[in-house]
Amino acid sequence: MSTCAPGSGSPIRTLRVNTQSPYNVHIGTNILSKAGQMLASDGLVPSKVLVVTTPPIQALWLAEAEKGLGGVLWDLAVIPDGEIHKSLETVSSLYDTLAEKRYDRSSMVLALGGGVVGDVAGFAAATYMRGIAFVQAPTTLLAQVDASVGGKVAVDHVRGKNLIGAFHQPASVVCDLAVLGTLPARTYSDGLAEVVKTALIGGEEFLGFLEAHAARLLSREASVVGRVVEDCVRLKASIVETDERDLGGRMMLNLGHTFGHAIETSCAYEGVSHGQAVAVGLAMATNLAVLLQMAEAGLLQRLKRLLSALDLPATVTELATRATPEQIRHHLGADKKAREGRARFIVPRAPGDVVVMESVPEDIVLRVLAQEP
Amino acid sequence: MSTCAPGSGSPIRTLRVNTQSPYNVHIGTNILSKAGQMLASDGLVPSKVLVVTTPPIQALWLAEAEKGLGGVLWDLAVIPDGEIHKSLETVSSLYDTLAEKRYDRSSMVLALGGGVVGDVAGFAAATYMRGIAFVQAPTTLLAQVDASVGGKVAVDHVRGKNLIGAFHQPASVVCDLAVLGTLPARTYSDGLAEVVKTALIGGEEFLGFLEAHAARLLSREASVVGRVVEDCVRLKASIVETDERDLGGRMMLNLGHTFGHAIETSCAYEGVSHGQAVAVGLAMATNLAVLLQMAEAGLLQRLKRLLSALDLPATVTELATRATPEQIRHHLGADKKAREGRARFIVPRAPGDVVVMESVPEDIVLRVLAQEP
Repeated sequence: MSTCAPGSGSPIRTLRVNTQSPYNVHIGTNILSKAGQMLASDGLVPSKVLVVTTPPIQALWLAEAEKGLGGVLWDLAVIPDGEIHKSLETVSSLYDTLAEKRYDRSSMVLALGGGVVGDVAGFAAATYMRGIAFVQAPTTLLAQVDASVGGKVAVDHVRGKNLIGAFHQPASVVCDLAVLGTLPARTYSDGLAEVVKTALIGGEEFLGFLEAHAARLLSREASVVGRVVEDCVRLKASIVETDERDLGGRMMLNLGHTFGHAIETSCAYEGVSHGQAVAVGLAMATNLAVLLQMAEAGLLQRLKRLLSALDLPATVTELATRATPEQIRHHLGADKKAREGRARFIVPRAPGDVVVMESVPEDIVLRVLAQEP
Repeated sequence: MSTCAPGSGSPIRTLRVNTQSPYNVHIGTNILSKAGQMLASDGLVPSKVLVVTTPPIQALWLAEAEKGLGGVLWDLAVIPDGEIHKSLETVSSLYDTLAEKRYDRSSMVLALGGGVVGDVAGFAAATYMRGIAFVQAPTTLLAQVDASVGGKVAVDHVRGKNLIGAFHQPASVVCDLAVLGTLPARTYSDGLAEVVKTALIGGEEFLGFLEAHAARLLSREASVVGRVVEDCVRLKASIVETDERDLGGRMMLNLGHTFGHAIETSCAYEGVSHGQAVAVGLAMATNLAVLLQMAEAGLLQRLKRLLSALDLPATVTELATRATPEQIRHHLGADKKAREGRARFIVPRAPGDVVVMESVPEDIVLRVLAQEP
């Protein structure tokens, strides 16, 4: 990791992700308007750039990004907002734009938005001409701490989340902390669910920091948010580096997501955000560990307190959805991590000690789903 | 390369392709019914197999493939025949089948068909759950000598051939030479265009063999066809091994394809087969070399004689299409190999000596298109 100071303002922190094709993650405040310099320093000189964004982000941040692109030729593709548009149809509309405007392998796709934009733009970039460069400029906390690093891009299928996708590492990631200030409270809290997941994986120090600074984190105090984003990216990068293609080690990042995805699918991605589903999923995974006598009951209590302090749910009944235990159980078998219809669960034994369970007795899974922790 | 003798019948030749994830290409007569044994010897034991094929191949060869699969669980996906169905829509229908039947990362896709089936099934396998195993059982000469090896999978966009795709090496390739006997004459000749291309790249020995055995090759004499398929796969494998991701060296395989794709796109893939377009493209590329004074005029004459002996066209006027030089020129800039709208051409200086031309004077390109060689 290296630190560099720009001409003015706060310093930019640059983390390196050493995947097969390595790239930098730049973290700083008000750095979107300097994106071009960072890309150039990363050796990226595209012939032109397709900026993919949504209407709300266009209104708030496109001008900054335009400043950042400087004199580079660029086009705009505005896709509709919302998880329901993380679809093959939206990707197809990007193919049309790329082809109509004759983008080629010297061009680039810039994802200016949250996880949906990153996924849709990233999958289009991964598959247009068998792969062109793409840059992530994540505008949600969730995308900054998780989705923008690691190269997983995917769209949803009616039968499962992220069922259609690819591995396509970004050429660079620009995390402007200033954008987090304009997020709706709900969207910001969603990102905190992924932060809690990362801290559970990271260990006692990270989890303890969150517990000690929950209120300041929720109120978006710059120094706390900056440290949290950096710690999350660093941990994610270290895991991705050891398992770029998701063959084993990376599976621990799925903590809370086996249950979480099943919850989202059960209610067809409506009435529940990804972050909320992950938060409930984290509680369920921890409860599973407790019921399996792998973790102490105190870990679940700590987790529930932290989720509550960060304005996140820990139970399905707190969600605006009608997913029943039976529905969630049904969708657990369709998870990508499943083998032959049997779900694998990632469970925390303690902070920093997360394990994969290949076979969990059916009755214990049903108890977790039925008995709200 | 190693050779192994099955229980009965002709020997199976097995060529190894040493890509990042290496795989075997099995070549022999009546080996489809033994596919399961070969896959098992390659270490492939899928939980279930989705066989993707077209109605004509289903009628002719599905029973053999079923025999080959033995006791493995399998499902069938029949996709419509023809290049026009090499589309995102067809891929999407495969996603539906895979998701409905709960295929996962322990499952496999088997492409039983020509290049279109291999591309559609391969792209679906490359992107379903970010990639599951797929096996090629090519049933055309074109697919056996070219498409089934190398891991390029793609579908067409209305604005360009193969514009949407991925790199996804097969887990194994089973080339049953018996299927070539049932091909329509036109389809068989189409494959010969790719054979001629490979021989031009391969060198004097391979090209001379084709010239000496053109009639026997056209009449599908088993010993000649077997040697040609093997030589083509060996050359293709050696090139793919040095440039798996198509960053440079592999570009020579595009000989004849820059013009060929532009011809196909100009007539919206109707009235011209891929092989015919490539044959004309080979003649154009060679004429380009002659006009650039890089090749002797004699090479073009040799090529035209060989194409004619193999029942292949050398000029656009021989095709059942209305593509004008202007239309073809327009589509040259949209080729994936183009940089910033400028086409790159692969031209033969002599057999075995093929070079990439980054910038060809516009008037020479127009002369090639206007002046039928």
